[in-house]
Amino acid sequence: MERDKYLSAIKPRMPEKRYIHTIGVMETAISLAKKFGEDELAAETAAILHDIAKYADEEWMRKVVIENGLDERLIHWGSEILHGPVGAWIAETEFNINNEDILNAIRFHTTGRAGMSRLEKIIYIADMIEPNRKYDGVETLRNVAYEDLDLAMKACICHSISFLVQTEQQIYPVSIECFNDVISRNA
Amino acid sequence: MERDKYLSAIKPRMPEKRYIHTIGVMETAISLAKKFGEDELAAETAAILHDIAKYADEEWMRKVVIENGLDERLIHWGSEILHGPVGAWIAETEFNINNEDILNAIRFHTTGRAGMSRLEKIIYIADMIEPNRKYDGVETLRNVAYEDLDLAMKACICHSISFLVQTEQQIYPVSIECFNDVISRNA
Repeated sequence: MERDKYLSAIKPRMPEKRYIHTIGVMETAISLAKKFGEDELAAETAAILHDIAKYADEEWMRKVVIENGLDERLIHWGSEILHGPVGAWIAETEFNINNEDILNAIRFHTTGRAGMSRLEKIIYIADMIEPNRKYDGVETLRNVAYEDLDLAMKACICHSISFLVQTEQQIYPVSIECFNDVISRNA
Repeated sequence: MERDKYLSAIKPRMPEKRYIHTIGVMETAISLAKKFGEDELAAETAAILHDIAKYADEEWMRKVVIENGLDERLIHWGSEILHGPVGAWIAETEFNINNEDILNAIRFHTTGRAGMSRLEKIIYIADMIEPNRKYDGVETLRNVAYEDLDLAMKACICHSISFLVQTEQQIYPVSIECFNDVISRNA
């Protein structure tokens, strides 16, 4: 079974807590896929692999970016931004995943982007609301997620950017492209 | 006197309320310039002219952007973003102001930018804290402004971006470049 293969592949690459988070994302993503008519197997695969590069060495990730022609803006950013695009690269090169929608869902699960597909939204949202997440406002996000995927995406990206501003962390420009796109569609 | 010339030039181009706001920005900017050793006359001129294009026709402003080679990203944005750069263009072409620091202070007074000069920060901050401004948190910003210009700039850009997210308004990418720059300098 693909699920077991991918789960075995990620387990040794992350601490137990992150593995439990990943299982939560997987279950939430499958549940959202079912609710909104998305391919459940695609959601499962993207969810399991979304954090595969989370604990990879930062310098190694920069090397991957440079040697494989990934978005060159990435090299100025840390692991929090690098691990999505590099995770997609691992999924493609190590696991031969060639479904571009799954790869994009992994690639943009932290930053979002303008013009996200339904699967990309599901993974972005599932990552923020899976049952092990505990932060102020998560319950509101959970409730919206099962009502309306686009409203949930708007609530999630607004929450993310507000959090980065409050905690004085730099914002990757692609997240603002995502925010502006979501706002213009839900005006 | 230059002050009277510029005040007479802006008065007919804006409603009374905006003119009163402009006087407030002028007084605040001069006061901050005095406090932080900036050229007071430059602060006065930039402050008086900062909103000169605020009520200009949006389509006309887009034409100015295109015909004069201003930043091409501007054409997709409304008057809130256009009026700074177009105001700088008016200051330069109509009033023959060629002090690039004054022009930049007018140009970036709404969005900020990465690598702002002291004068640019003074105008950006004065615009947000002048005595006629009334919004939650303005008093805190006022207090910081007279203590530390860089901390005030950080507080102001954080407030601006949070406000845009909360009110679901699109964010001009140059404001995020400003935020990221300010955060990296004040980390």
